[in-house]
Amino acid sequence: MMQTIGSDDMTQPVHIGLVGMGTVGTGVVRVLQNSADHIARQAGRPLIVEHVVVQDPKKPRSVELSDKRLSSDLRNITENPAISVVAVLLGGLEPARTISLELLRSGKDLVTANKALVAEHGPELFQAAREAGRSIAFEAAIGGGIPIVAAVSECLTGNRISSIRGILNGTSNFILTKMEQEGSNYQDVLRLAQSEGYAEADPTMDVDGTDATQKLAILAHLAFGQWVPWASIPRFGLETIDQELLRFADELGWRIRVVADASRGVETLSLRVGPALVRKGTPLAETQGAFNAVSVVGDAVGPLFFHGLGAGQMPTASAVVADIIGTVVGRSAITFQQVGNVENSENVDSNIHGGPSPIFLRLHVADTPGVLADLTGILGGEGISIDSVIQHPAKNGQSGVPLIIMTHCCPAEAVDRAMNALNKNPAVRSPICCLPVITE
Amino acid sequence: MMQTIGSDDMTQPVHIGLVGMGTVGTGVVRVLQNSADHIARQAGRPLIVEHVVVQDPKKPRSVELSDKRLSSDLRNITENPAISVVAVLLGGLEPARTISLELLRSGKDLVTANKALVAEHGPELFQAAREAGRSIAFEAAIGGGIPIVAAVSECLTGNRISSIRGILNGTSNFILTKMEQEGSNYQDVLRLAQSEGYAEADPTMDVDGTDATQKLAILAHLAFGQWVPWASIPRFGLETIDQELLRFADELGWRIRVVADASRGVETLSLRVGPALVRKGTPLAETQGAFNAVSVVGDAVGPLFFHGLGAGQMPTASAVVADIIGTVVGRSAITFQQVGNVENSENVDSNIHGGPSPIFLRLHVADTPGVLADLTGILGGEGISIDSVIQHPAKNGQSGVPLIIMTHCCPAEAVDRAMNALNKNPAVRSPICCLPVITE
Repeated sequence: MMQTIGSDDMTQPVHIGLVGMGTVGTGVVRVLQNSADHIARQAGRPLIVEHVVVQDPKKPRSVELSDKRLSSDLRNITENPAISVVAVLLGGLEPARTISLELLRSGKDLVTANKALVAEHGPELFQAAREAGRSIAFEAAIGGGIPIVAAVSECLTGNRISSIRGILNGTSNFILTKMEQEGSNYQDVLRLAQSEGYAEADPTMDVDGTDATQKLAILAHLAFGQWVPWASIPRFGLETIDQELLRFADELGWRIRVVADASRGVETLSLRVGPALVRKGTPLAETQGAFNAVSVVGDAVGPLFFHGLGAGQMPTASAVVADIIGTVVGRSAITFQQVGNVENSENVDSNIHGGPSPIFLRLHVADTPGVLADLTGILGGEGISIDSVIQHPAKNGQSGVPLIIMTHCCPAEAVDRAMNALNKNPAVRSPICCLPVITE
Repeated sequence: MMQTIGSDDMTQPVHIGLVGMGTVGTGVVRVLQNSADHIARQAGRPLIVEHVVVQDPKKPRSVELSDKRLSSDLRNITENPAISVVAVLLGGLEPARTISLELLRSGKDLVTANKALVAEHGPELFQAAREAGRSIAFEAAIGGGIPIVAAVSECLTGNRISSIRGILNGTSNFILTKMEQEGSNYQDVLRLAQSEGYAEADPTMDVDGTDATQKLAILAHLAFGQWVPWASIPRFGLETIDQELLRFADELGWRIRVVADASRGVETLSLRVGPALVRKGTPLAETQGAFNAVSVVGDAVGPLFFHGLGAGQMPTASAVVADIIGTVVGRSAITFQQVGNVENSENVDSNIHGGPSPIFLRLHVADTPGVLADLTGILGGEGISIDSVIQHPAKNGQSGVPLIIMTHCCPAEAVDRAMNALNKNPAVRSPICCLPVITE
């Protein structure tokens, strides 16, 4: 009963190129080989991996590819007119950028999973693609198998989006939820994550927020039409989170998650990546382990929530293959035309302070009379009003009494000024931990 | 920096037709009017509501439409060659079916939110559309604003899907979670839901599972390539759920949700809609109130979860408008070509028994020696092994002692046979409640 594009087209395979055969590239070849019949139906015709360019063609691979399809010479793709779609599955900025530009100029449509590349060189690459009449599909760059790029750029097109918030880095969420569940400290859990393969040998980009920030910059382009330089987005890592913070948050009914947050005000776009308090029972708070999650609010659709495996070989390959199919059938070219073309996108200033929110403060203070009045007076002086306070007795050996303050919603600038003043106060015994509270 | 389709095209609006101006139709006009500039950017050109066909053009409307754009004559759309896309926003089967066929034959692409229409007449309408070279987009038919149709038919195309499970009816989920939170009984909560607008004056289709079953039948077509007659899918309503069941489930660490479940075995497709036990803390269990949720498992992507407002004027309008835009830019035509065209779709038999699962039984039994041995012996005779048993003392006036049995995973056919035998046993004092347990 089902019509297909026609038996002539069905016998004409589409030839695919790949650049890079690391974890994701291997997964993509595996999916294309194992599900070849299924994919041929979805694409309307068979897909053939025509050529793969790698640094070292002699290296042993866990998928079968004949030698003649594997080389280190990009011209085997750029100069092969039969190849129309190329998946660029290299990490990092170079040579990924140069290769992508060469591929676009040689008339290839691109698919990529490289979030650093799109966040850093998106404006240049998108312009080059449009000039060449080609498309770039990058679902796999954010949230692994979660179809958040399609959701924002194809499914929510009738909405003005007011916020996108997500847990976009599985490694840091794995570490945080392990710390929460097992009471262990950051360094121990990081070593465990490395030994179990959840964290890279060099986990810096994951735990310092860089990876999530690059993904947020791309989402901000899709939802708000802005190319915000990702390095200008304030980002905070996991290293300040300790068991005392997790316990106090728990006592108050919250969890701590590394949240990438882009919220739009009337004329501002507030962006921030870092640990934040999210209320227990809400979807972000219940996101455990290496999962990713994204919450989007649109003016018509209301709140939407997506949850899935945000990284790993096969979830990422799922997104790459869907983009390859989308490119083959012509959907990607259509979507790419309008990506980031949202109302008033040019009038919105990005606000590197993050938006207004309640804040959660943890201070260690001298156990002397008048201290609480002094410190809360500083907050009051900035117009920051207090929602609740917890003070427990000091433990032996602690450099002060832990004091927890939750405030009502306040502007980020007022918080910055108050933090400066508080950190200079002689009663404050260690650097203050200040986390935004996400109340929705 | 952003290229658009070109200034010539940008000045050429696309003319839209609407049939039906109830809740959803009004929402669609509202979005198209309020977000006209935004939508013009996303569609590459302005969208104009050219004509709306309604039963009674004189009826007062909460959106402004000039009289000449409103009539009761479908020919004002079918005979207007300027109109290329029509949203059919009528409920029920007729005249929606006849009107849809006429629109397709007159060369219009369709967008619809009518799940009964697609579930019942999908094969006929899809064939008519393909014969006419037109497309049908129906994101709004399932899960309101949740982009589950796009996810399955565009974003997971590299995956063989093994299961789709969802809370697809907001009304019954609202009732169930109110009963859970407030300890009230079904009839009282239903009346509250009606007075608050969460339930229709006639809520039959919502609470008996019909609405969710129609949506499941459409999802089964997308994910498994089958057009299963929706009325053949076993469906169970809410009316058997009482406080005792909710309390026992809670005691064992579970919640009860109305789950629409399509799971694929090697050569079978198991389908069922009805109350089921889901473990507390899992995404389906934490879906509260009028929200919808869908969980999809694919062989590459693993588990994905979607959550959002599954009904209501604006969330549904969000999906309709996205489909109108998708049709205008050409995405819907591409996607519609391959919808339901999945591997081996013709070799899968749908299994009207539902799949194998553990089961949760609630019996009221005579408080006499040997009863537990008798009843568990019946289960053992069918090869059903028991995981746990709870028996609390009888309360005054109860017709028997409540007995709760959780089993290990067992085939649905064995459960059917055991239920027959148990219901005939003289020690059993009221009809047994038997719910599947979703363990993933």
